[in-house]
Amino acid sequence: MATASGKSKVRIAIDAMGGDFGPSVVIPGAALALVRRPDTTFIFFGKKGEIEPVLNAHAALKAVSQVVHSDVAIAMTDKPSQALRAGRKVSSMWMALEAVKSGEADAVISAGNTGALMAMSKFCLRTMPGVDRPAIAAMWPTVRGESIVLDVGATIGADAQHLVDLAIMGAAMAQIVFDLPRPSVGLLNVGVEEIKGLEEIKAAGRVLRESDLAGLTYHGFVEGDDIGRGTVDVVVTEGYTGNIALKTAEGTARQVAQYLREAMSSSLMAKIGYVFARGAFNAIRDKMDPRKVNGGVFLGLDGVVIKSHGGTDAEGYAGAIEVGYEMVKHELLGKIHHSLAQAHEERLNTAPEVSLPPAAQ
Amino acid sequence: MATASGKSKVRIAIDAMGGDFGPSVVIPGAALALVRRPDTTFIFFGKKGEIEPVLNAHAALKAVSQVVHSDVAIAMTDKPSQALRAGRKVSSMWMALEAVKSGEADAVISAGNTGALMAMSKFCLRTMPGVDRPAIAAMWPTVRGESIVLDVGATIGADAQHLVDLAIMGAAMAQIVFDLPRPSVGLLNVGVEEIKGLEEIKAAGRVLRESDLAGLTYHGFVEGDDIGRGTVDVVVTEGYTGNIALKTAEGTARQVAQYLREAMSSSLMAKIGYVFARGAFNAIRDKMDPRKVNGGVFLGLDGVVIKSHGGTDAEGYAGAIEVGYEMVKHELLGKIHHSLAQAHEERLNTAPEVSLPPAAQ
Repeated sequence: MATASGKSKVRIAIDAMGGDFGPSVVIPGAALALVRRPDTTFIFFGKKGEIEPVLNAHAALKAVSQVVHSDVAIAMTDKPSQALRAGRKVSSMWMALEAVKSGEADAVISAGNTGALMAMSKFCLRTMPGVDRPAIAAMWPTVRGESIVLDVGATIGADAQHLVDLAIMGAAMAQIVFDLPRPSVGLLNVGVEEIKGLEEIKAAGRVLRESDLAGLTYHGFVEGDDIGRGTVDVVVTEGYTGNIALKTAEGTARQVAQYLREAMSSSLMAKIGYVFARGAFNAIRDKMDPRKVNGGVFLGLDGVVIKSHGGTDAEGYAGAIEVGYEMVKHELLGKIHHSLAQAHEERLNTAPEVSLPPAAQ
Repeated sequence: MATASGKSKVRIAIDAMGGDFGPSVVIPGAALALVRRPDTTFIFFGKKGEIEPVLNAHAALKAVSQVVHSDVAIAMTDKPSQALRAGRKVSSMWMALEAVKSGEADAVISAGNTGALMAMSKFCLRTMPGVDRPAIAAMWPTVRGESIVLDVGATIGADAQHLVDLAIMGAAMAQIVFDLPRPSVGLLNVGVEEIKGLEEIKAAGRVLRESDLAGLTYHGFVEGDDIGRGTVDVVVTEGYTGNIALKTAEGTARQVAQYLREAMSSSLMAKIGYVFARGAFNAIRDKMDPRKVNGGVFLGLDGVVIKSHGGTDAEGYAGAIEVGYEMVKHELLGKIHHSLAQAHEERLNTAPEVSLPPAAQ
């Protein structure tokens, strides 16, 4: 990991009502995270009557935690506009974000509704200076380990400049997660040749190649099958395609898992084979286990926001907290800010040569 | 299957030089297809010196085949523009297309370079009246069987009207492949709610819902994970996203297969388990086998063109020929023409109510 910041404690704001299970998963998850990251403190936002009984069972956690009461919980099915209307100022989700905005906490973790969390994050925290639109970065398991893929659905459509910003933000996250000074970055495209694809992707590729940013190594275009292959550390695409790629991969993994289940119960021989190979099957399940890489990072906001899967268990929730911890400890926001400033300077210097479409300038 | 056409024989034009293996796979593939579809005749285009020795080993096939010599073969690595420059009129690929254009053959099969085949198909056969741009439709294995996904990379970007055309063309193909009068059609989107996604997708959804076409049942939006789930018979998206979804799914399937291989050789117990469950593993491999669903269909052209995988074997190539056979026998072009005409009429009737963006009208 990169150098740690000077802060002595990482203060985590938790939307305790988010997710399918609320405090019954969130609090044991925080207890697990505290064991592995002892320099952490917590503020839990939500219904005291539900939080405190669970927290009482975790003495070490209770000793470093505050509870702030909120009566309003955003439902997993609320539309973002509904959530904002009903939950602004008063919901556990909003209050957790507000704690980061006011400086009482360093990062927010929520397993709540993604659309509502993004809408509230934009509204409460605003985007960083120089960033128009936030993105969601996902950790993607590959045959070589993991890669970061962004944007997986925060904003639809992207001009060349937004794609370059995504590359910069994803690389800053990759520096922390993979402990690499210059992670490799690829632009998702329909072919690896420079002449192929959408104009904005080609323009972003030219900018990334020519500006030679200090925080990343530009690899070039990658195709859909390069994601699972782990060809690059960071795969950049706009949110519509990124969301479809992510869900298509999840669907394919589930499909193969179903084929496996059916095949392994299709005959006596297969059932016997399964008994012998059970350990191996469990190892595969672990590799594909979303809990192992839980924690989508919202990038481009003026604050660290981590989205945990709604259906995760305590182990998965602890993983999301640890992602937030690392982002704070290794100064994600500072890294993004620094890289964006460098890119912006490059852009001013090279503007006459770079042929961006007018809308992207 | 739907009702057969009156034609007594289906005449297939074969680009014998296409693919990684040329005549050594193409001709045994045709021989297999002939066993299963005896009312077929063949014209092979390519180097006589390479074709005839292989053909001589297949007497039944030879009896229903012609060979037309061509010295020029399009390489798998040629760019479309190079292929057109060097191969127009004279290459085996072009000459096979020309045979369909002139009426000597009913369908073309090529395992050659996809970009070159699409460029030559557009140039030689042209698009059907009322279709601006062709598409490539892929057969996609699902947990329920198979679905058709289009466009997987012929043209990048789509306005609402092109998406509606894709729905109509994909449904016509699905009528034949799945023997359904009104196959279900979904538009690929980032959420299933009507308010989500790109403007052109929402507009296409409104048109499909309001026009209630005779040849398809409009399901609504589907997400990436609905493809492998088999939620609809036909999944419609533009070529950039479709290509990325297809390659992401292929990559994920390969990734899981690699995990499986590694896990099954990771311990003695796993190896013993593998021996018992080998039959089950082979069944999974068959289900994911691209040869079983080989044959991408080029839609929107004034002729039937089938793209076989370049690396397929004789069994896979036979599959591609059989796809071409079915498209001819069950009158794909007539079905598309008929559905497009109906949709066009609907459009004229409902134009004032339908709020397409100006570019799409």
